[in-house]
Amino acid sequence: MTMKSTMPEVGIIMGSKSDLPVMIDAVEVLKLLGAHAEVTIVSAHRTPDRMFDYAKSAASRGLKVIIAGAGGAAHLPGMVASITHLPVIGVPVKSSNSIDGWDSVLSILQMPNGIPVATVALNAAKNAGILAAQILAVSDKQIAQNLLNFKADLAKKVEESAKEVEEGGH
Amino acid sequence: MTMKSTMPEVGIIMGSKSDLPVMIDAVEVLKLLGAHAEVTIVSAHRTPDRMFDYAKSAASRGLKVIIAGAGGAAHLPGMVASITHLPVIGVPVKSSNSIDGWDSVLSILQMPNGIPVATVALNAAKNAGILAAQILAVSDKQIAQNLLNFKADLAKKVEESAKEVEEGGH
Amino acid sequence: MTMKSTMPEVGIIMGSKSDLPVMIDAVEVLKLLGAHAEVTIVSAHRTPDRMFDYAKSAASRGLKVIIAGAGGAAHLPGMVASITHLPVIGVPVKSSNSIDGWDSVLSILQMPNGIPVATVALNAAKNAGILAAQILAVSDKQIAQNLLNFKADLAKKVEESAKEVEEGGH
Amino acid sequence: MTMKSTMPEVGIIMGSKSDLPVMIDAVEVLKLLGAHAEVTIVSAHRTPDRMFDYAKSAASRGLKVIIAGAGGAAHLPGMVASITHLPVIGVPVKSSNSIDGWDSVLSILQMPNGIPVATVALNAAKNAGILAAQILAVSDKQIAQNLLNFKADLAKKVEESAKEVEEGGH
Amino acid sequence: MTMKSTMPEVGIIMGSKSDLPVMIDAVEVLKLLGAHAEVTIVSAHRTPDRMFDYAKSAASRGLKVIIAGAGGAAHLPGMVASITHLPVIGVPVKSSNSIDGWDSVLSILQMPNGIPVATVALNAAKNAGILAAQILAVSDKQIAQNLLNFKADLAKKVEESAKEVEEGGH
Amino acid sequence: MTMKSTMPEVGIIMGSKSDLPVMIDAVEVLKLLGAHAEVTIVSAHRTPDRMFDYAKSAASRGLKVIIAGAGGAAHLPGMVASITHLPVIGVPVKSSNSIDGWDSVLSILQMPNGIPVATVALNAAKNAGILAAQILAVSDKQIAQNLLNFKADLAKKVEESAKEVEEGGH
Amino acid sequence: MTMKSTMPEVGIIMGSKSDLPVMIDAVEVLKLLGAHAEVTIVSAHRTPDRMFDYAKSAASRGLKVIIAGAGGAAHLPGMVASITHLPVIGVPVKSSNSIDGWDSVLSILQMPNGIPVATVALNAAKNAGILAAQILAVSDKQIAQNLLNFKADLAKKVEESAKEVEEGGH
Amino acid sequence: MTMKSTMPEVGIIMGSKSDLPVMIDAVEVLKLLGAHAEVTIVSAHRTPDRMFDYAKSAASRGLKVIIAGAGGAAHLPGMVASITHLPVIGVPVKSSNSIDGWDSVLSILQMPNGIPVATVALNAAKNAGILAAQILAVSDKQIAQNLLNFKADLAKKVEESAKEVEEGGH
Repeated sequence: MTMKSTMPEVGIIMGSKSDLPVMIDAVEVLKLLGAHAEVTIVSAHRTPDRMFDYAKSAASRGLKVIIAGAGGAAHLPGMVASITHLPVIGVPVKSSNSIDGWDSVLSILQMPNGIPVATVALNAAKNAGILAAQILAVSDKQIAQNLLNFKADLAKKVEESAKEVEEGGH
Repeated sequence: MTMKSTMPEVGIIMGSKSDLPVMIDAVEVLKLLGAHAEVTIVSAHRTPDRMFDYAKSAASRGLKVIIAGAGGAAHLPGMVASITHLPVIGVPVKSSNSIDGWDSVLSILQMPNGIPVATVALNAAKNAGILAAQILAVSDKQIAQNLLNFKADLAKKVEESAKEVEEGGH
Repeated sequence: MTMKSTMPEVGIIMGSKSDLPVMIDAVEVLKLLGAHAEVTIVSAHRTPDRMFDYAKSAASRGLKVIIAGAGGAAHLPGMVASITHLPVIGVPVKSSNSIDGWDSVLSILQMPNGIPVATVALNAAKNAGILAAQILAVSDKQIAQNLLNFKADLAKKVEESAKEVEEGGH
Repeated sequence: MTMKSTMPEVGIIMGSKSDLPVMIDAVEVLKLLGAHAEVTIVSAHRTPDRMFDYAKSAASRGLKVIIAGAGGAAHLPGMVASITHLPVIGVPVKSSNSIDGWDSVLSILQMPNGIPVATVALNAAKNAGILAAQILAVSDKQIAQNLLNFKADLAKKVEESAKEVEEGGH
Repeated sequence: MTMKSTMPEVGIIMGSKSDLPVMIDAVEVLKLLGAHAEVTIVSAHRTPDRMFDYAKSAASRGLKVIIAGAGGAAHLPGMVASITHLPVIGVPVKSSNSIDGWDSVLSILQMPNGIPVATVALNAAKNAGILAAQILAVSDKQIAQNLLNFKADLAKKVEESAKEVEEGGH
Repeated sequence: MTMKSTMPEVGIIMGSKSDLPVMIDAVEVLKLLGAHAEVTIVSAHRTPDRMFDYAKSAASRGLKVIIAGAGGAAHLPGMVASITHLPVIGVPVKSSNSIDGWDSVLSILQMPNGIPVATVALNAAKNAGILAAQILAVSDKQIAQNLLNFKADLAKKVEESAKEVEEGGH
Repeated sequence: MTMKSTMPEVGIIMGSKSDLPVMIDAVEVLKLLGAHAEVTIVSAHRTPDRMFDYAKSAASRGLKVIIAGAGGAAHLPGMVASITHLPVIGVPVKSSNSIDGWDSVLSILQMPNGIPVATVALNAAKNAGILAAQILAVSDKQIAQNLLNFKADLAKKVEESAKEVEEGGH
Repeated sequence: MTMKSTMPEVGIIMGSKSDLPVMIDAVEVLKLLGAHAEVTIVSAHRTPDRMFDYAKSAASRGLKVIIAGAGGAAHLPGMVASITHLPVIGVPVKSSNSIDGWDSVLSILQMPNGIPVATVALNAAKNAGILAAQILAVSDKQIAQNLLNFKADLAKKVEESAKEVEEGGH
């Protein structure tokens, strides 16, 4: 369906344009896996109204999953999750004002009971994209197949580098 | 449909029966939200074959999401995620052999690129259940509605306790 | 002025009624120091709309300082600070779902440039109250004098316990 | 009033000249927000007498808020707060002798009951300046208005970068 | 010499009477090792003047070593060391307001260049007493001999418990 | 015996070719100590089947010890140990996606009761090689002798650098 | 062979009798696995001579592996490893003077290149015993068989508790 | 007395020549303060016999204080303290194999009761030298006077840089 190809299912947001070099990995892996994403900047702290509007309208605009990246006292993923019932994936970004990433990780991960954020590893926007695709794949067979292929590729690359190392490449 | 009510969509596993007092919250909130779950014990370290079989057969048995809880060097969520393409939610359990929960959190959260685990807060099995429901809700309108009601209830309870405190209950 | 005694200058909020045993210290020390406070429950995650309304109306309702306590991924102080221009004092609460308090501390303290939260020590609601009084005292001579008396009392108590210990009380 | 423009309301001190590249942000944002500040070096450890004199005379010299930055075992903010009743804002500086900033943060934040320090994020001298302005704004309408404009600017910049990213700038 | 027995060589101070159950170990081991100590309460934060007077007069009053215990943002040892040139031994106390003791340890240990504090383990007031005795023993042969006997006793006790365990006591 | 020289006793595996610059130290020190090793890439997460096959066949292929290096949520050493009864030595690698190495260390070290991993220091592949040689030396007198010579060399080098420093080399 | 049953192959030492409740697990699992162990107290800090003698004579007395447990600044495992060429297994004990076990773990694990200690999890004396048995099993077929049986038992117990949970035992 | 100028009172040792760039600060400040020091390399792990000999003979050779620097699992200061009754000052070195310095700090600081090490800040060899001088100054008036001058110089330098900053140097 061409309709499908133009309607984003995944919303990717981040607190600042400086998070884009990290978050771009989510955009790219979602394209690779056949999912449609939109990207923008939404700051919980500098644009709280914009954040509320984004989160409140997300489901009605057709989004199915939201990926939110932020660093330091990273409130964006949790606040979006507090407003929408869509699954929200949080990417702790090791920004310049972060204490080795611990603040980013803990302020995204440690959400209170009732409001989960699906947290991935520090800076792991690629994994956020894959996880979003896995969520879509629950009801989208094409993406499910793409994920199986993706996993097979991962294994193949390891086997190739194993061969190189065994043959004395080190 | 009665069929639906007997086919589990969410598989809940944990490394040891001692994790059950924590993990039971996932079972209960899923029931509340109208999703069907099965529960069992699968240890990555003590029953690696059982873990492989569980993960390999999960999708074909009809599971759509897996919740895996474990403590210490917690490998169960990540290893299951390495085998299946289903979304895997990891619950870091603060078990008796854990160093304040940091080992459980980091060994579930910090997965390498390619293999995400949707990590929730330490001991937050309830949030794992809600997240699983959110994932199912992408293609299940009933569960979506249940989640909206659940969120409304959360807000209502806060407003009630606010009234108590304002009226001098403290 | 009786008007003054009935108009709260300090708003004390917390994410959950379970934070009240910690936060009550702020209420009491503010009373002792002659400042007027109101107390209620506002959850960033469970009642985001209520939080927005509270923060947006705070200045126009006459509040001059806000004290916000929360635990775990504690977003309440930072989110309130993102909405109002009033000074916001954050109290990291070591709640039951916290990892030794580190999550509470970091998710309140590590705010990005532009949106400060005046963070006090873990569970230090009493210090939050004193800090609020210090802020009011910038333009309120009575509270300033009360603070000077309070400091003198602190010193006197240390000197008394010093005498006890020197005289062999240990 | 020209008087006003020559009498500093905010005293900015730091333990060493090497903290100046961090602390200069406080000076600049205060100027932007229309508050008057003075800057000097005061070391709790190398000039304890100077520190005592500074703190004891601060209120009588007309200062209303003190910003103190220090790194490592950072005692300056807490010691100044022990001597004056003015609000003291502490900036943990990640100095070269710091263990990833943890020592700076904890030795400023974790003040005992009775003596608060309003702590901001690691190296967040800009936020210290904004917080000082927020405190002055409680009784200074011009600074209050400047803060509202400042917040509006923050939002505007996010919206501009959002537009860039949405239009494919990434 | 009776003179010697009545003139304290070691000053033991602590921030609060609640530190006494920890700090009493320093008093007792110094008595055991034949050194003379005085004990009192001096709070850097609640009695800064008293702290200054204590530190400034310490050498002229005949003290040779100072032991200072404090918890949380523990400034007492470092501030005393900033004022006197006597060796200062710091005991990080795991007080009730401490984050697992890390704040106490770091705010005592991480002193800047120029102002050392001889830090011992968390709550290790006994070791502070032994260290003070070792310092006195540099010019006091009796205390040196007492230290040698003390070490021999430590070894003897280990050997006795070794015998018990080897003979099947476990 | 030439047989011996062609049959590897130590299997060295790592999760990714990017770990090789760290892990090569194990290869080299084992060669120096006269033990025979094979090296390859085995990823627990990207090639779980390969990992199972490797671990299951290790003992029957003649391996006596396995060295496994991995970073981040490092499951390879623990999972191999869950499958084989051979001693498994784990090397926590400070990979690019690691939080200062803590995740690598904790997810290898904190194995549950029943399934040990002999963990060495962060990035300490050389020590993993020496430990493997020590294990072989329990029943191999030549390697035992080589280890004694290796230890003597370590001491000799320290004594040489001591002489340099004493003679004013600093 | 009765000879075998009376000659210890594994030496188990610990820094203090207070470590025995933790370390006893190593004794018991080694008995279960058919290995012969001796147990005693050796303190690196209180009996350095005894520690030297123990480590120097270990190999000649017939020991093949040493298990050393200690807490806090735990130097026993590393110092024994510096003296003998036998494999040394370190058990970090969370003793009463430990900072949440971090000191015990880091001072055992982070050995410099040249002197490995095979570190197991915090308090994991049982795993230390199993690891010692795995090392002996390299050249002892009976112990190897016992280990295989032990692993089979672990799996069986998990399967039994899985059945209980699946049948509704929770 | 010329005798005095040729007999070292302070022994400075370190685990490796790579620690010299850090430890040289102790040598230099001791020279500045008029104390006599010797420097050499002693490794607890690579030269345990040399370490024993050094510590056992230290007092009889005339040393009065020992400064020991080491990194990672840093056992040198504690082991020397276990053998001699002289005061031992430990310098945690942030060596290349250290986890951000935490291992160095904790394995030196957290000594068990009975065996203190006077620990200074990470890499703070200068402070170790000053502390050694303070210990000698208990019975050496010249060094005491030098320390007073040193402290006066520290203050003077701060006052000079304060003047620069106040005069607009920033």
